[in-house]
Amino acid sequence: MDTPAQAPKLQFDTHPSKYRHWILAVDGEIARLTMKVQPFGGANSELELKSNSYDLSVDIELADAIQRLRFEHPQVKCCMITSAHEKIFCAGANIYMLASSTHPFKVNFCKYTNETRLAIEDASQHSGIRFLAACNGATAGGGYELALACDEIVLIDDGSSTVALPEVPLLGVLPGTGGLTRVVDKRKVRRDLADAFSTLAEGVKGKRAVEWGLVDAVVPRSKFADTIAQRARDLAAKATAVPRGPAVELDPIGDYRHVALKLDEKSRRAELTVCGPTEAKRVEHASFWPLRMARELDHALLRLRFEHENVGLLIVRTEGDRKIAHQMGELLMADDGFTREVRLNLARTLRRLDVTARSLFAVVDQSSCFSGPLFELLLACDRSYVLDADGVEVWPGSLSAGALPGWNGLSRLETRFLADPQRAQRVLAAAKEGPIEAGTANQLGLATVFADDIDFEEELRVAVEERASISPDALTGMEQNFRFAGPETLATKIFGRLSAWQNWIFIRPNATGERGALTMYGKPERPQFDFRRT
Amino acid sequence: MDTPAQAPKLQFDTHPSKYRHWILAVDGEIARLTMKVQPFGGANSELELKSNSYDLSVDIELADAIQRLRFEHPQVKCCMITSAHEKIFCAGANIYMLASSTHPFKVNFCKYTNETRLAIEDASQHSGIRFLAACNGATAGGGYELALACDEIVLIDDGSSTVALPEVPLLGVLPGTGGLTRVVDKRKVRRDLADAFSTLAEGVKGKRAVEWGLVDAVVPRSKFADTIAQRARDLAAKATAVPRGPAVELDPIGDYRHVALKLDEKSRRAELTVCGPTEAKRVEHASFWPLRMARELDHALLRLRFEHENVGLLIVRTEGDRKIAHQMGELLMADDGFTREVRLNLARTLRRLDVTARSLFAVVDQSSCFSGPLFELLLACDRSYVLDADGVEVWPGSLSAGALPGWNGLSRLETRFLADPQRAQRVLAAAKEGPIEAGTANQLGLATVFADDIDFEEELRVAVEERASISPDALTGMEQNFRFAGPETLATKIFGRLSAWQNWIFIRPNATGERGALTMYGKPERPQFDFRRT
Repeated sequence: MDTPAQAPKLQFDTHPSKYRHWILAVDGEIARLTMKVQPFGGANSELELKSNSYDLSVDIELADAIQRLRFEHPQVKCCMITSAHEKIFCAGANIYMLASSTHPFKVNFCKYTNETRLAIEDASQHSGIRFLAACNGATAGGGYELALACDEIVLIDDGSSTVALPEVPLLGVLPGTGGLTRVVDKRKVRRDLADAFSTLAEGVKGKRAVEWGLVDAVVPRSKFADTIAQRARDLAAKATAVPRGPAVELDPIGDYRHVALKLDEKSRRAELTVCGPTEAKRVEHASFWPLRMARELDHALLRLRFEHENVGLLIVRTEGDRKIAHQMGELLMADDGFTREVRLNLARTLRRLDVTARSLFAVVDQSSCFSGPLFELLLACDRSYVLDADGVEVWPGSLSAGALPGWNGLSRLETRFLADPQRAQRVLAAAKEGPIEAGTANQLGLATVFADDIDFEEELRVAVEERASISPDALTGMEQNFRFAGPETLATKIFGRLSAWQNWIFIRPNATGERGALTMYGKPERPQFDFRRT
Repeated sequence: MDTPAQAPKLQFDTHPSKYRHWILAVDGEIARLTMKVQPFGGANSELELKSNSYDLSVDIELADAIQRLRFEHPQVKCCMITSAHEKIFCAGANIYMLASSTHPFKVNFCKYTNETRLAIEDASQHSGIRFLAACNGATAGGGYELALACDEIVLIDDGSSTVALPEVPLLGVLPGTGGLTRVVDKRKVRRDLADAFSTLAEGVKGKRAVEWGLVDAVVPRSKFADTIAQRARDLAAKATAVPRGPAVELDPIGDYRHVALKLDEKSRRAELTVCGPTEAKRVEHASFWPLRMARELDHALLRLRFEHENVGLLIVRTEGDRKIAHQMGELLMADDGFTREVRLNLARTLRRLDVTARSLFAVVDQSSCFSGPLFELLLACDRSYVLDADGVEVWPGSLSAGALPGWNGLSRLETRFLADPQRAQRVLAAAKEGPIEAGTANQLGLATVFADDIDFEEELRVAVEERASISPDALTGMEQNFRFAGPETLATKIFGRLSAWQNWIFIRPNATGERGALTMYGKPERPQFDFRRT
C-alpha cells in the first residue's frame, strides 16, 4: 500500500478567477451566477459544449461558486442563476460527452451533478440563500434540473423558450440529475402531467408551464430583467435569517495536510487516513482544521471516484489526539455563522462519503482517533473492526446527536440503531463520561467485529480479501440499500431509486448499445429497441 | 386489435387440490402451510428443483394459499409456514432456473415473488392472520426472504441450520424478493451487521442469529415442534380481531366474464376493457362482481407480464352502467368480513397494476364506466384521455377516499394531488352530487388530455404511436418514479429502489455475462469481474 495517489487529472479545486464557464457577481444581498459555457473549454477540449451544455468541469465550477457564496459572501441572501446566451438558459449535460463516456463515468457524473443540486437546496435550507432560476431562454434536460434545484423558476415568455426534459423521448435514458423526483416530489406536479411533460421532447412553454406547476412564472422579454431583479429582492427579503459570516476565503487545496489517501490499485483497495487536529482552537480562517480536513476529504473522495474506478474498498483510519479531537467537536457546536458553515460543510462531506460506491471498513486500534467529528467516519462505514486491547477508545461528541445528519435526515447513530433509538442515546450518554473503551464500545453496538491482538489482523485480512472477490455491482446495490435505511427524503429517492433506474438504463443496449438511443443521438438513423418490457 | 390473447402457458390459477409443492392444512385457528417442492414438478420439467428451491409455479401456489386463507378459512388467525424436508426449510429461488431465464422473466419473477411476500404482510396487517416462519432447516436466499415476510421467525438450533442471504457473495446479484429492505427496514437489523450477514455465504445460526435480530428465536430439535405449536397459538391469540367470513370458496377463473384483453402484438399494444356490474347486489359468492372482476383483472395482468413481453402500452377502457357501478362501490364500503376481503383484494389487484411495467392510458368516452371501483383505474393510469362531449362522465365513490390505497399508503386521489390535498377533497365532494361530466372532470384535474370529437381520436392515435417509439427501459424507469411519488413504505422501497438495483445488476456482465457470477454458478471456474465500481 505504498503507491501515493497520482496527481488528479480533473481539477476539482477551482476559484472564481479561474472559472471558464460561469461569472459570479455579488452585489449586496444579491448574487448573480451567469452561465456562459466556453464551447471548447471543457475537460475534453475536442468536444464542443454548444448551447450552454455542460460537462463535469462546468459543474465543478458551479459547486465551487455555491460553496464560496456560503463562506466568502455571507451577506448574500439570494442567488440568481441565469445565462449569458440570448436564447438559451442551458441545454443540459452534453450528449456527446455522455455518449462517449464509460458507464462508471456516466454514473459518477450524474452523482456529482446531483450532489451539486442538493448543495444548492442545502444552502437554501440552512444558510438562508434563496435561489432564483432566471431562465432567459430554452431550459432543457440538466438545465431544467438545475432550475428545479432552485427555490423559484421564472421562464421567459418569448413564444419559443420552453422547459423540457427530453431525455426519455430523445435519448432513451432518464433525466439523471434528480429531475423526475423533483418534478413530482418537490414541485408536486400531477403525475399524469409529469408523464406528458417528460415524454414531450419539445417541452412546455408559457401559461401551460405555469399551470402544470413546472415554473413559477412566465415573463415577457421586455419585463424579464426588471421582474427577476424584483423577485430576487423579494426572495432575499423572505430568506430565513440565520447567523452568517464573517467572510472567510477558501484557499486552494494544494497538498493535503490532514488526509492521506494511499492506493493499492493491484489489490483494488485504498487506505484513507484522516488526522485529527493538533490543537482545539477556533480560527476564522480556511486553515481551521474541520474546514480544511473536510475539504481535503471531499477532494480525496472525488479523486477516488473519478480516477480510481477499480478501487472497491476503502479502509478508513484515523490518527491523532482523541482529547483534542473531542474538544474540537464541541467547539464546532457553536452557533456563530462561520462555525455553522464549517459544520454544515462537514455534514455535506460525510454525505459525499455515504454515496461513494465503495465498501468502507473502519479500523479502530490504539493509534486511531475516532473522536469528536471523526467518530462519524466510523458510523459512515459499512463495517467497523475494533481491536480488543487496552488503550483502544472511541469518543463521540455532541455533533453525533444530529448536527451531522445523513441523507435520510437522521443522525448516523439513529440510523444505526433504528430498532431501538434508546441505544443511540446510550452511546451519547456514555461519551458524556469520557472516552469509551473498546469493550464498552462493542457492548454498545459500535463494533461489527471485535477481536483481540491474536485474531484482529487476520480477521481484517480475510474480510478485505473476501470483499475484493465479490461482484462490485452486487456490493454497490447492497450498500446503497443498507445505507439508506429509515425515513426517505428527496435525496434518498434521488440516490436510492432514481440513480438505480438510471444505472440500469444506461447499461441497457436500448440506450448504449450499437443502435441504442444515446449512441444514435444526432445521427440520421433511428435507434433500434428491444421492446420487451421489464 | 383483434388477436385474442392466447391460452396461458403458465397456470396462474390453481387450487389446493392441484398443489404440487405445498400442503395446506387447517386446524381451527391455525393453518399449516408445508413446503415440499416436487423436484421435477416445476414449470420446466427438465429442471430439478432441489432442496425446496422454487420457481414461479411454487410461488403461484403460495400466493393462492394465502388468498384462500383469507376467503375460505376465516377462522384462521395464524398460519405457520414450514417445510416437509428434514434439514431444509427452503433454499430460495432455483439458481439454474434464474440463470437460464431471460432478463424480462427474471425481473417479472422477482416482482411476482415480492408481491406474494407483500400479500402475506397485507394478510397479517388487515385480515388478522399472523404468520410464523417455522424454519426447521437451512433457510437461504428467497427462503429467508419468505421468512422475513412473516411476523415471527423461529430457526431450528441443530448446530448447522442457518439463515442466509448468499446472493451477493455467491451469485453477484441482490436478494431479489425484498430481502435487503426487510433486513434493515422491517427487522431493523443494524446496517453493519446486515452487511456482514449479506456477504457471508454460509449464513448465521444459533444465538448469533437472535442477537443480530435475524430471527426471533432458535429452538433445539427436541423442542421445535412444541415450541412452534405454542408460538402459533400465542400469535393467534394476539392477532388483531377483524370481521372475518363467512367462508366463500374461490372458483376457477376459466373464461373471463368482466374483463377483456385484446392484444395487438404487432403494434405492441393491448386494450384492456373492464365491464361494470349489471346489478348492484351483494352476494356471498365468488361470482360477486368486484371479486370476480378483480380476480380476472389480476389474471390478465399476469398473462400480460409473462406472456406478452413486447406489449408496452395498455389502453384501459371501461364499459357498463355508471349508476350501478357507483352503487356497487358504495356496497363495497360495508365492514362485514366478506366485503372487507373483497375490498382488500381489489386494492391488491390495483396495486398489481401499479407495478406493471407497461404504459397505461385510460380512455374516457361515452361508453365508458369509470364509476365506483372502476374510477380507480383512471387514477392508476399514467395518463387519461377524456372526450369533451355530452354524456361523458366519471363518478368516483366513497372507495376513492382511501379504501383502496396505493403502495405509498395514500389514496390514488391524494397521490394525484400531492401539491394540494384540497383538490382530492373537491373531487370527492363533486361526486357526492352525482356523476361528474367531462368538462368538470377536466377542471377538477382528472384529464391529462381533454379533446373534442374532432381531435380526440387523432390525439390518442398520435400519443399511442409516440409512446410505442420510445425506449421501453426509459419508460419503465420514468413510470416507476412517477407512480411512487409521495411517502415511502416498505413496498415502495422494494419496488422503487431494490428492484431497480436488481434490474441493473441482473443485466450487468458481472452477473449474466459469459463469465458472470450467475452464469458460472455451479461450475468449477471462478467468475470474472470488471471491477470498476459504479
